[in-house]
Amino acid sequence: MDSVEHTSSRTKSFTYKTGTTWLESRSGTLSSEGKPTLRVASPPEFKGERGVWTPEDLFVGSVEICHMTTFLSFAAQRKLSIISYKSHANGVLEFIDGDYRFTRIVIFPTITVGSAVAETDVHTLLREAEKHCLVANSIASIVEVNPTIIVQPG
Amino acid sequence: MDSVEHTSSRTKSFTYKTGTTWLESRSGTLSSEGKPTLRVASPPEFKGERGVWTPEDLFVGSVEICHMTTFLSFAAQRKLSIISYKSHANGVLEFIDGDYRFTRIVIFPTITVGSAVAETDVHTLLREAEKHCLVANSIASIVEVNPTIIVQPG
Repeated sequence: MDSVEHTSSRTKSFTYKTGTTWLESRSGTLSSEGKPTLRVASPPEFKGERGVWTPEDLFVGSVEICHMTTFLSFAAQRKLSIISYKSHANGVLEFIDGDYRFTRIVIFPTITVGSAVAETDVHTLLREAEKHCLVANSIASIVEVNPTIIVQPG
Repeated sequence: MDSVEHTSSRTKSFTYKTGTTWLESRSGTLSSEGKPTLRVASPPEFKGERGVWTPEDLFVGSVEICHMTTFLSFAAQRKLSIISYKSHANGVLEFIDGDYRFTRIVIFPTITVGSAVAETDVHTLLREAEKHCLVANSIASIVEVNPTIIVQPG
């Protein structure tokens, strides 16, 4: 059984499958068919562990990676050459009305391109990636993108 | 610099920090200070790779782990003894109004306890975990929990 199920090409629906197993205290493993199993736990501030991936990290990371891959996909479609892309992201968790929730995720991409013309295209594609990132479209938090674009002629 | 910043105990706010670096095509790495770096990519159905964690997997996984750790935290508070906990989760991605989004995440926990009394408590705590899971509270998708509870007297 694969970890993804493509229900039908007509309905454009996919099912992603994951699994968890509790180990001890507030830690366990996260698995998905055919992929390396991850150790996971609550973060130290919620009585968990340091140095282990947490649900909070993976939530913020899933938005950040989705933004990167969406941008790269648009760049490939437009044949826009990218020299490098890296980013960091901050996800803000706040206690509001008796519950914690992520209110805001801010992504800071640093993108290097070869010309000033490409720089303009990057801004356009970043706006499109922000609009079409499927994970960002699935969450209730505000997502902001604050890019830095470096022009490095070859 | 730690990957988590506790802004203030009065406002109960935490900031989770992650980073990505593009490698090639639609793949890269996901990092968080002090944790093992993950290889990540788009899934094959979006021109990515097989056998690598994707934003889609990590989104579904973050909800699933958060549900587990929230449940375990409530069980510890009530001194409810759990013999084992594992789950699997299905996240349904659908193309609606011109964009993909996760419409539904269904979590199937299998929980083993030592008595029929504990079984009743587990149902109560599962409902509370469903209500208070901070990642589930941060997303727009419907989250459903379909538990199987096994009573295994010691």
